[in-house]
Amino acid sequence: MNSATHPLTLHDDRLFPAEPTQRAIARRLYAHVAKLPIISPHGHTDPAWFAGNQPFANATQLLLVPDHYVFRMLYSQGISLDALGIARVDGSRNDVDPRQAWRVFAHHFHLFRGTPSSMWLNHVFHDVFGLRVRLDAGTADQYYDHITAALQRPEYLPRSLFERFNIELIATTESPLDPLQHHAAIRASGWGGRVITAYRPDPVIDPEHEQFTAALQAFGEITGEDVHHWDGYLRAHRQRRAFFAQAGATSTDHGHPTAATADLSRADAARLFGKVVSGTFSAQEAECFRAQMLTEMAAMSMDDGLVMQIHPGCFRNHNRTLFERYGRDKGADIPLRTEYVNALKPLLDRFGNAPDFKLILFTLDESSYSRELAPLAGHYPALHLGPAWWFHDAPEGMWRFREWTLSSAGFYNTVGFNDDTRAFLSIPARHDVARRVDCAFLAKLVTEHRLDEDEAAELAVDLAYNLPKRAYKL
Amino acid sequence: MNSATHPLTLHDDRLFPAEPTQRAIARRLYAHVAKLPIISPHGHTDPAWFAGNQPFANATQLLLVPDHYVFRMLYSQGISLDALGIARVDGSRNDVDPRQAWRVFAHHFHLFRGTPSSMWLNHVFHDVFGLRVRLDAGTADQYYDHITAALQRPEYLPRSLFERFNIELIATTESPLDPLQHHAAIRASGWGGRVITAYRPDPVIDPEHEQFTAALQAFGEITGEDVHHWDGYLRAHRQRRAFFAQAGATSTDHGHPTAATADLSRADAARLFGKVVSGTFSAQEAECFRAQMLTEMAAMSMDDGLVMQIHPGCFRNHNRTLFERYGRDKGADIPLRTEYVNALKPLLDRFGNAPDFKLILFTLDESSYSRELAPLAGHYPALHLGPAWWFHDAPEGMWRFREWTLSSAGFYNTVGFNDDTRAFLSIPARHDVARRVDCAFLAKLVTEHRLDEDEAAELAVDLAYNLPKRAYKL
Amino acid sequence: MNSATHPLTLHDDRLFPAEPTQRAIARRLYAHVAKLPIISPHGHTDPAWFAGNQPFANATQLLLVPDHYVFRMLYSQGISLDALGIARVDGSRNDVDPRQAWRVFAHHFHLFRGTPSSMWLNHVFHDVFGLRVRLDAGTADQYYDHITAALQRPEYLPRSLFERFNIELIATTESPLDPLQHHAAIRASGWGGRVITAYRPDPVIDPEHEQFTAALQAFGEITGEDVHHWDGYLRAHRQRRAFFAQAGATSTDHGHPTAATADLSRADAARLFGKVVSGTFSAQEAECFRAQMLTEMAAMSMDDGLVMQIHPGCFRNHNRTLFERYGRDKGADIPLRTEYVNALKPLLDRFGNAPDFKLILFTLDESSYSRELAPLAGHYPALHLGPAWWFHDAPEGMWRFREWTLSSAGFYNTVGFNDDTRAFLSIPARHDVARRVDCAFLAKLVTEHRLDEDEAAELAVDLAYNLPKRAYKL
Repeated sequence: MNSATHPLTLHDDRLFPAEPTQRAIARRLYAHVAKLPIISPHGHTDPAWFAGNQPFANATQLLLVPDHYVFRMLYSQGISLDALGIARVDGSRNDVDPRQAWRVFAHHFHLFRGTPSSMWLNHVFHDVFGLRVRLDAGTADQYYDHITAALQRPEYLPRSLFERFNIELIATTESPLDPLQHHAAIRASGWGGRVITAYRPDPVIDPEHEQFTAALQAFGEITGEDVHHWDGYLRAHRQRRAFFAQAGATSTDHGHPTAATADLSRADAARLFGKVVSGTFSAQEAECFRAQMLTEMAAMSMDDGLVMQIHPGCFRNHNRTLFERYGRDKGADIPLRTEYVNALKPLLDRFGNAPDFKLILFTLDESSYSRELAPLAGHYPALHLGPAWWFHDAPEGMWRFREWTLSSAGFYNTVGFNDDTRAFLSIPARHDVARRVDCAFLAKLVTEHRLDEDEAAELAVDLAYNLPKRAYKL
Repeated sequence: MNSATHPLTLHDDRLFPAEPTQRAIARRLYAHVAKLPIISPHGHTDPAWFAGNQPFANATQLLLVPDHYVFRMLYSQGISLDALGIARVDGSRNDVDPRQAWRVFAHHFHLFRGTPSSMWLNHVFHDVFGLRVRLDAGTADQYYDHITAALQRPEYLPRSLFERFNIELIATTESPLDPLQHHAAIRASGWGGRVITAYRPDPVIDPEHEQFTAALQAFGEITGEDVHHWDGYLRAHRQRRAFFAQAGATSTDHGHPTAATADLSRADAARLFGKVVSGTFSAQEAECFRAQMLTEMAAMSMDDGLVMQIHPGCFRNHNRTLFERYGRDKGADIPLRTEYVNALKPLLDRFGNAPDFKLILFTLDESSYSRELAPLAGHYPALHLGPAWWFHDAPEGMWRFREWTLSSAGFYNTVGFNDDTRAFLSIPARHDVARRVDCAFLAKLVTEHRLDEDEAAELAVDLAYNLPKRAYKL
Repeated sequence: MNSATHPLTLHDDRLFPAEPTQRAIARRLYAHVAKLPIISPHGHTDPAWFAGNQPFANATQLLLVPDHYVFRMLYSQGISLDALGIARVDGSRNDVDPRQAWRVFAHHFHLFRGTPSSMWLNHVFHDVFGLRVRLDAGTADQYYDHITAALQRPEYLPRSLFERFNIELIATTESPLDPLQHHAAIRASGWGGRVITAYRPDPVIDPEHEQFTAALQAFGEITGEDVHHWDGYLRAHRQRRAFFAQAGATSTDHGHPTAATADLSRADAARLFGKVVSGTFSAQEAECFRAQMLTEMAAMSMDDGLVMQIHPGCFRNHNRTLFERYGRDKGADIPLRTEYVNALKPLLDRFGNAPDFKLILFTLDESSYSRELAPLAGHYPALHLGPAWWFHDAPEGMWRFREWTLSSAGFYNTVGFNDDTRAFLSIPARHDVARRVDCAFLAKLVTEHRLDEDEAAELAVDLAYNLPKRAYKL
């Protein structure tokens, strides 16, 4: 808004509490974890980047267009998706110059003040691209040119960034229909970066998914199983899970609208599947089928050892007009109140005490942290708590996660941080935020004499590095 | 309780964090907003005060009897409403000397320790009346005499206080049946104070309102429309909305038990209205009618530009005995769990993307802040978040509002502060609290290096002044 | 984990905020309450300890086996209950050497870092047993020997500890079937310790309790009433309540799955009871019966003056396998979302305004604090808020309780602290934590100039001592 530029800084003490004693402790704790390699056990980067190792196109295509965290905020303030160059489902696209879209973004960058997006983006601008002025209308072109030029240089190729980011391992997420050719190419290439997949079968499990019928058909083709009958369908899952495990997967992931699980008899499950396949099912039957499949997935995890993740409680594509015009994942996913205690009981009755089964739970309903999730995870051997997720992985949300789960679940029933992102360049920023918030939280416990500093230091390393490796069997 | 008096002070640094760096920043930010004019876009002051400009009667009638924030706390500790001089619905009133009622209040003033009521009242005592000792049993008479005498002086007349309070604009709230004669008188008087109205049609929209049948009858009389048929009923709303807009209104307000909206066909809506008018409707039909009317109101806002507010989620008049004896609004309104994501979808499907439609959402269910409201407002162009409301407009509640909405909605999808009060004298105190809490919150972001101080200063002014003007089209 | 020992300290400033001004105020406030006698108006210690005054067996039997707070955390990390010496329902018990179980516990003590269990246990180790090294694998035997030896000394007998702990009064909790012989023995012994009971009739009220039929039978035998008919059943309650009151009880307690209350006609209630007695009732009828009985209990409290407590919202014995193998209360109780506003209305419609009736409400659903419980307690004369309970009585939970209830309920509609524990030795630690957290909270209000320090000092004493005595009529 001002014509003068403002310096862009990334303060060494960012996210640390103001009180000097506490800040000094946070700093010392952070020194133990600042340089640890990144473990990213759950996320949505594109394996094709690491297989092909081609340069990213420009600032807009890299940082704005794919990031619904970012463009949803612009949209909420009246900026059309067309103006940002987001493609429509009919394949059409407003003929937007990417520089022009970047200017719109820069002009409205103040909308992000205080949000995690601004923190992540400024970290990327400062540390990845070496920029030292704030982004605003006056510096838009300078930013666009600088970033776009950098992206053509070898040190900004995906693999170079992967190495520079000190990523020890990254997991992507694929549908059972994915041939995993990019993962194969990465392994065949001889490159040392460890990129694994995760089994995310929602499109072939959710009867209400708009692609279900076609996906089921393809599921039969890729497996050679008779997936329109219950036994063949289950065999197909087992086969693809094994294929994913061979490609490095250590986990599955399930993004259902609720956390409901069921434990039907074989006959009832087969009968329900028949209805699902025939397309003549009620909403309640669809829900019951998804619920049954979570328990089936747990049963398979008992055999093949894949760690199970449930990411429930989101109303996907809430904005009808936008969904029709631009398709899925356009920033219109809205959290729902989510119940766990009754919902998970059928699955836990079967597998909750199994010594080798691991189920990592996530939530978008923070009221469940202290009421349901921490008490469940603080009792069942199978259960672990995933970190603050999606809408809640800002510093405030991470702090609440610790503050609301600590007393019943402790630290050791949690699994460290997930970045869960498709914004590759922001991964170091996100892990850095998580590490800083955990160190600030631990520093508070130390200054209040609830923990000795040596214990806090051990915990800081566990939360940043050891717990994710253990939880995800990495 | 002690016989000695205690000094009453209003510390310059009240509500600012203790840590010196943070406090210094909060102070600097507050300096930018301390003297800004008050924008009060939603509240319940009586326009007759400003039209008639008559003196307030005495301390008890002004500060105690009308304020259910205050007398509910006394009642909760066993003090009868009769003893405070609250009138009964049968018109009877315990013959309570207002001085005697004031003594009861003063004797129990310690019950308010730490509550927003004590903060607001002490601000009024100190700044409006110049008192410098704390209110307690020993100072009750001194207070009563001092305040009651002051109220007879010209500088304590409503218009003088309005000016002294530096109020740029205040909105009152009226029923569609209100002839708005006080607003007309204010305008006709030549006085410069800007007092506008807001359209609050609950009594003619809610079939379960105890005055619905009579109110509907009067609605027909005041508009000359056939309000017992659907088309005429809608025309009557349009007519009164236009009349309110001419009297300065820029907004409507809707206090429904839930946030449910509906989008019935014209024929179904007309049929439902027929049932409502006939008096033979179920609770579910009443709910459906209120839901449909929210969408109708939104449709009218598309035409006349009035900003829409929804204040849902309150169980009104929960205490049956008290309601029968003393009537509505006696401190027995209790918040309810409130769902927004499914409830608002019918309305949002029609108007959520409309560039000129504005819907400001409030809640009494703080668990919805991070889960539903911030994600909704951080996506839909039409949606904005109203501030912490009613039971939650204390410093803790305001802080939670910011902390729980920031990451998904940012600051710019919020609309600044509403005092929402009928306690006229407390308005400067309430806005001052809001400004101080926002400055304290921003100071925390600055000390944690998430925001530069110049950005925080701009935000402080936006939150205190610019955002309410923009959101309410003032 | 390290072979070197670490010093165990109990810092004088523990739980106080880091900021020096605030900490100094917290310290001064705490000085007013640190030495006050302990009022423990609700808990689960065994009266046989104080009647028999026999030594506790050993460290494991005293501190580990009975404490499901502690062993649930070990269980959640894969340690079997057998390895800890927890008995099975079939009477069998793994032949575990208690020293061996203690070693398992010590080896995993890091799991409790940051949890209230570690705080309470370290307080016991340090202050009750004089230990000055941290518990870990290396010090396990030293701990076991030291504690077990101490327990044989006279100053570690139950009555000696009671006196050393400066307990003014402790309430235990008994079923109506309990003959209260231990309480009689305590009174008859001439010992000065005040140990009273509380009436907890769940087993004879909840038709779904696994012991209901047998308990009802025994209820008839102990009272000589025809408890299989409604009138006799109610008379039996009145009789036992009177017997409990004679044994010192001042309260009843009700641990229902929900807060539902009902107000049926006498005929409907009798008919419902008939179904309950016959064993042919639906889940809904069981719920309705429990709901009706809360209102009946309130009616009896109107007569006999017993303070009523409701502890709702827990899914008991959630882990089926564990329940079958080890029985009730094995750390598998999980909180549920709990509604109060509609649930309590039938009871409040009858007794909410009664001047002498007292109902203390608890919750495991923290989202109800600011939304439902504080507004209810800040209005109804009969209602008071019990403190942060069970999963929430950690420092964070206690802080949230204050922060979320203050604005609507103030301090004076709360009732001070309950330890609610069977872990006798931890009682001083638990009350100390509560007093420190309250002093820290008050210190924040003082530094932010919302309260003068003399008011805070008065409040600190009220919260620690006067309010529980008043609320529980002690």
